[in-house]
Amino acid sequence: MSDIDPEAFARLAREVRILTDIEAIKRLRYAYCRCMDTARFDEFRELLTPEFSCRYIGASYEFVANGRDEFVQMIRESFNTKVGATHQLHHPEIDIVDETHAEGRWYLQDVVYKYLTNELIYGTLIYDDRYEKRADGWKLAHSEYYRVIEVVEFPPRPPRFTGRYLEEHGYRLPE
Amino acid sequence: MSDIDPEAFARLAREVRILTDIEAIKRLRYAYCRCMDTARFDEFRELLTPEFSCRYIGASYEFVANGRDEFVQMIRESFNTKVGATHQLHHPEIDIVDETHAEGRWYLQDVVYKYLTNELIYGTLIYDDRYEKRADGWKLAHSEYYRVIEVVEFPPRPPRFTGRYLEEHGYRLPE
Amino acid sequence: MSDIDPEAFARLAREVRILTDIEAIKRLRYAYCRCMDTARFDEFRELLTPEFSCRYIGASYEFVANGRDEFVQMIRESFNTKVGATHQLHHPEIDIVDETHAEGRWYLQDVVYKYLTNELIYGTLIYDDRYEKRADGWKLAHSEYYRVIEVVEFPPRPPRFTGRYLEEHGYRLPE
Repeated sequence: MSDIDPEAFARLAREVRILTDIEAIKRLRYAYCRCMDTARFDEFRELLTPEFSCRYIGASYEFVANGRDEFVQMIRESFNTKVGATHQLHHPEIDIVDETHAEGRWYLQDVVYKYLTNELIYGTLIYDDRYEKRADGWKLAHSEYYRVIEVVEFPPRPPRFTGRYLEEHGYRLPE
Repeated sequence: MSDIDPEAFARLAREVRILTDIEAIKRLRYAYCRCMDTARFDEFRELLTPEFSCRYIGASYEFVANGRDEFVQMIRESFNTKVGATHQLHHPEIDIVDETHAEGRWYLQDVVYKYLTNELIYGTLIYDDRYEKRADGWKLAHSEYYRVIEVVEFPPRPPRFTGRYLEEHGYRLPE
Repeated sequence: MSDIDPEAFARLAREVRILTDIEAIKRLRYAYCRCMDTARFDEFRELLTPEFSCRYIGASYEFVANGRDEFVQMIRESFNTKVGATHQLHHPEIDIVDETHAEGRWYLQDVVYKYLTNELIYGTLIYDDRYEKRADGWKLAHSEYYRVIEVVEFPPRPPRFTGRYLEEHGYRLPE
């Protein structure tokens, strides 16, 4: 016969739920970057709430979107065949607010080269995110960032890409 | 007297096992890269199943191995004293299939400079792994990758390395 | 009526505590780098034990500190308005030794540019840390590192920073 305190069990179950939710939110955000860089925009779309909004403050640009449809369309066109891009997310600091709300901070590193303008943009930035749990899992609801460093170079010639996934799989710009 | 449902307890135990296994597999993969870049090939070998196989598709190379012995020997010779190398793994998306099988996806960043050919190779790639749990823990059983970006430059002079761990600790090529 | 084994419950609780402690230590270390690169030195200070010590062996420098006050002062002055800096931590391999002691290994990537000397320093390194749990949570007690690669370049002109957080928020050097 057990003498386990039901409250101790409930507390443990809550701790496990928090750890499981943190892991799920990490995966959500990793999938977000992977889907961008490999132009998987059907999968990408499912990572966002329909009401998704963002405010991304670069040094040389500002990117604001209201609603998932607008955002996905803008992102899709940015990840076109004339671009080389890699976005990697680090340093998850995730707070589970309640069973369906969470907040997260991340530290991204990105490198983007655009053939059309010969711009090489790279650097790092800090994200502040909000997440919501919906019927089919955790989604990104809102996201903001500010830059730690951003460098824009116009190199004398393009990087010597021997591989560039978007060359074949990226969005095809209208001629 | 407790009224904890034994099924609830079993469910919780399963969730904890999954989280613990995910953490163990992350460590396995982090050790894999650390051991390559610091030429610790006895530790490296123990991270793989004896039957380990891989298929690594770079843009400028293809690297296939069948069996741990063949693979470790190829890797060991690549991490020689004439090389500077750093490999960092990001974005673990780990699925525990059952108690002894798992799958994982990762997003790597690598930089390799080879003095013998003056090649500077850098970029990112996506791994698809399979893991198996053996008597002494989780092992990497199979691994594949494809490139997101790969750049190969032949710089006018080598990078000005002020530190390069492999210079002292790497494999010594025959004269 | 439950027949859950109290020992099984205690074992599960211990596993959950380990996972929760690992997550807390990861966050501690992520906050450490974020606070450096964004010059948040009040928050940074709280991440360290008062007795904090370190031994950081670069290829072109050695950085030793005994005591938190000395260390925070040295770091604060390094992250000044004449610097662009980004430090990202990867590959946590965390061992929980007991309820108040832990050890950790990490693989860092860093990029620092100093306008005053026109030095661009970048590379990777491996940290070996010790942590202690105090009344208000896990703290970094001791840290050491050695370099995997370190490159120091004196570029013909500074990187074209379009954003550099420390420009506005970094420590102001005496004129």
